[in-house]
Amino acid sequence: MEREHFSKQYDAELNEIRSKLLEMGGKVEAMIADAMKSLVERDTELAERTIKFDHHINHLEMEIDERCLQVLATRQPAARDLRFITLALKIVTDLERIGDQCRNIAIRARELNEEPPLKPYIDLPRMAAAAATMVKEALDAFVRGDDELAIKVCKDDQFVDDLNDQIQRELLTFMMGNPATIARAMKVNHISKCLERIADHATNVAEMVIFMIKGKDIRHTNV
Amino acid sequence: MEREHFSKQYDAELNEIRSKLLEMGGKVEAMIADAMKSLVERDTELAERTIKFDHHINHLEMEIDERCLQVLATRQPAARDLRFITLALKIVTDLERIGDQCRNIAIRARELNEEPPLKPYIDLPRMAAAAATMVKEALDAFVRGDDELAIKVCKDDQFVDDLNDQIQRELLTFMMGNPATIARAMKVNHISKCLERIADHATNVAEMVIFMIKGKDIRHTNV
Repeated sequence: MEREHFSKQYDAELNEIRSKLLEMGGKVEAMIADAMKSLVERDTELAERTIKFDHHINHLEMEIDERCLQVLATRQPAARDLRFITLALKIVTDLERIGDQCRNIAIRARELNEEPPLKPYIDLPRMAAAAATMVKEALDAFVRGDDELAIKVCKDDQFVDDLNDQIQRELLTFMMGNPATIARAMKVNHISKCLERIADHATNVAEMVIFMIKGKDIRHTNV
Repeated sequence: MEREHFSKQYDAELNEIRSKLLEMGGKVEAMIADAMKSLVERDTELAERTIKFDHHINHLEMEIDERCLQVLATRQPAARDLRFITLALKIVTDLERIGDQCRNIAIRARELNEEPPLKPYIDLPRMAAAAATMVKEALDAFVRGDDELAIKVCKDDQFVDDLNDQIQRELLTFMMGNPATIARAMKVNHISKCLERIADHATNVAEMVIFMIKGKDIRHTNV
């Protein structure tokens, strides 16, 4: 009876970590959308809110870290649970850094909103949407233990990389055609790179999930 | 007697993780220097070697991860040791991503070496040297449990950020003065950002070390 109580408590603790991670993931996704919206709709007030929101993400990181350490210290998890918790510790760092990237995007958006628009943003929002989906799916793959979904995320990274390359080429043409656009184009370029990094973080998470499930490391091989 | 044997074994395992991490850190530092040398001395062959060397860093990451999981599973470490191992798991990810950045620098160096030089590199090597020192000191702070050194690393990040800003401003002037330099300047800009990211990784490590030592989280407050 006591053992059962212990085990239920333990399950509850693991579930708590799982749901906190999903909560953090949801907030990070929203942050990507907000950062992009603040740029596309030239909404500086939203950019400010996004910059401030980063604190909240940082606190979630610390909270989840502490919960993981607590479980490691008191439950001495083995096998699957151990991999789950150590992976949660790593994933939370990726999520926090995605938050940093959103903050960086919002900072640039705030600057760009002060200047005449360079051109309508078409590819950047597509890139942001793809990156946000990758973040969502990487986390879903983690909590469900779904390696197929994780593999999909790794493959989708190419799409974001290609968009980034395309944006960079376009910006280059733009700058060469009209040097007056250079300063603004560099900022847009920075935003594109931030999105690419977000997708990289999602890919890192997905690769670690595949490792957790299959027990073999595909992080540094080709999927 | 048996207990003592157990404890000696355990200490040896922790020391092994510590020394593997230092080994990985040393290799990553050398990689930063090599990537920069391949650019400054226009040594494409060295760039190629640096790109390939990244595999080796990736393998070290997997190896250290496995050792950490092994100790967690078999030794059920508590308190200090637990923080040490969970931190090692996070640090190793930062080191691996520094390796990725060095690879990115070497890839751009290889491209830039095919074109006429833009201008002598003065600030980039300074930035690279500062970033490499930060990586070294962050790891030293970790293995020695030296919070003063970790705080120094966090402060030094400003120097690298300032250099990055300065380089970006210079490149902007360069591009506006002569649009023919834009494509090359964008690549140099990319390298500057890679170095800034390396310094950020070192700062992340240092912040986590301070957390480990002081038990309080300064990651998301001002040092």
